[in-house]
Amino acid sequence: MDKLFVIKIGGNIIEDDKKLSSFLRSFAAIDGNKILVHGGGKLATKMAEQLSIPQQMVEGRRVTDTETLKVITMVYAGSVNKNIVASLQQSNCNAIGLTGADGDLIRSHKRQNSVVDFGWVGDVERVNVQSVAALLRANFAPVLAPLTHDGQGQLLNTNADTIAQEVAKSMSELYEVDLIYCFEKSGVLKNVNDEGSLIPVISPGLFNELKNEKIISEGMLPKLENAMKALNAGVHKIVIGKAEELSSLIKGTAGTTINHE
Amino acid sequence: MDKLFVIKIGGNIIEDDKKLSSFLRSFAAIDGNKILVHGGGKLATKMAEQLSIPQQMVEGRRVTDTETLKVITMVYAGSVNKNIVASLQQSNCNAIGLTGADGDLIRSHKRQNSVVDFGWVGDVERVNVQSVAALLRANFAPVLAPLTHDGQGQLLNTNADTIAQEVAKSMSELYEVDLIYCFEKSGVLKNVNDEGSLIPVISPGLFNELKNEKIISEGMLPKLENAMKALNAGVHKIVIGKAEELSSLIKGTAGTTINHE
Repeated sequence: MDKLFVIKIGGNIIEDDKKLSSFLRSFAAIDGNKILVHGGGKLATKMAEQLSIPQQMVEGRRVTDTETLKVITMVYAGSVNKNIVASLQQSNCNAIGLTGADGDLIRSHKRQNSVVDFGWVGDVERVNVQSVAALLRANFAPVLAPLTHDGQGQLLNTNADTIAQEVAKSMSELYEVDLIYCFEKSGVLKNVNDEGSLIPVISPGLFNELKNEKIISEGMLPKLENAMKALNAGVHKIVIGKAEELSSLIKGTAGTTINHE
Repeated sequence: MDKLFVIKIGGNIIEDDKKLSSFLRSFAAIDGNKILVHGGGKLATKMAEQLSIPQQMVEGRRVTDTETLKVITMVYAGSVNKNIVASLQQSNCNAIGLTGADGDLIRSHKRQNSVVDFGWVGDVERVNVQSVAALLRANFAPVLAPLTHDGQGQLLNTNADTIAQEVAKSMSELYEVDLIYCFEKSGVLKNVNDEGSLIPVISPGLFNELKNEKIISEGMLPKLENAMKALNAGVHKIVIGKAEELSSLIKGTAGTTINHE
């Protein structure tokens, strides 16, 4: 099976031009099949402010009314996505910037039966494995913005972590997929305030121990639970670590690796 | 040689939801290889106004400073492009929305030696025929926003008519290309105020006669001169007509056809 890296970067790095450039050079340097999934973070909030569109966050998620969806589409699929693509092209990476609507790559449905009405937020239904594979075979590196569609003409705001996870799971049908989550810490820490307390490898067994002993922080728990789900769904391994260390994360010499060991 | 339709729509239809939906249904219904190139018209001007970014137009072209380029990227590559894609997907057309930076499809350079400094405006250098062909072979219908890149990380604002023409010319290497320009009139008219005075077919010979007799209006002359250039560069035929009549333009039963007859 061919190797595929699915790499997710969050909003904090996207807002830092210098860190972003350096990250993108490391991404461009990865050999073989690769997909980048990006968030947009506070850039959409800033644009909404400039346009006087009030924003409402519930449980850390954005309530996406019609005006907010327009802003998200402009910022995530427009400026953030296309600037990443132009920058990767400069580093000789044949990036192609897409949403889940493009090539019908990711179909979702508007979130239902939620206590909170999140508006135009989509839960992923399926990833179009054949279309993604066609792009990879044509030597493109897809760069995915956190938007999907419902097949009925509606774009939907979709969490970038979820997109990365669903793409990694589905693509495991055809590839040996490593899913890399880049964030601001060195990886999973025994003590959130001590970067030296990194746990280098977590197996399902160790995960249960750490969970029972309440060693994993509340912020990290859902990330790790999702990583376990991805592992069970066929993803080869999941690596969590610092964006600045991408090339080491790829090699497995930095960050926390979650695998079946 | 396989057939390829390159179809350009302008800003006026993009601002009219009802006309746009109807046009996109006709586009989706076209069999075989097709590429849509869209402008964005006044939508970028409106967004710039909302964001208090002053706009300057010279000879009908937008002066594109850094802030204006951001607006154009958001509006053209973001909201306009992705809403067109989602709408085409609804009509079972496998649209994929791209700029010239994506897949390195269209390389350009910042306009130079111009009396007016147009800012971040790009003149096309080359179309990546192999990348476009790879997308068509994978059964995607590319939807191109009027942005290109210089390969050095810089996005550039590029006229949609020019993009359509350059794509049509370059793709003629591999396909029999029909280039369709949709606008608000029925085609080339002998009398601009009389829709009944349509000239159905223009050959290079007739073009010279019409030009010498000053029958072609000033607005139409550069369009036709570009059409002649496209014809000489290997494009099979060019059709100019109403967006509402797309299916007839494709069949050659409406609009003005420019060919070697």
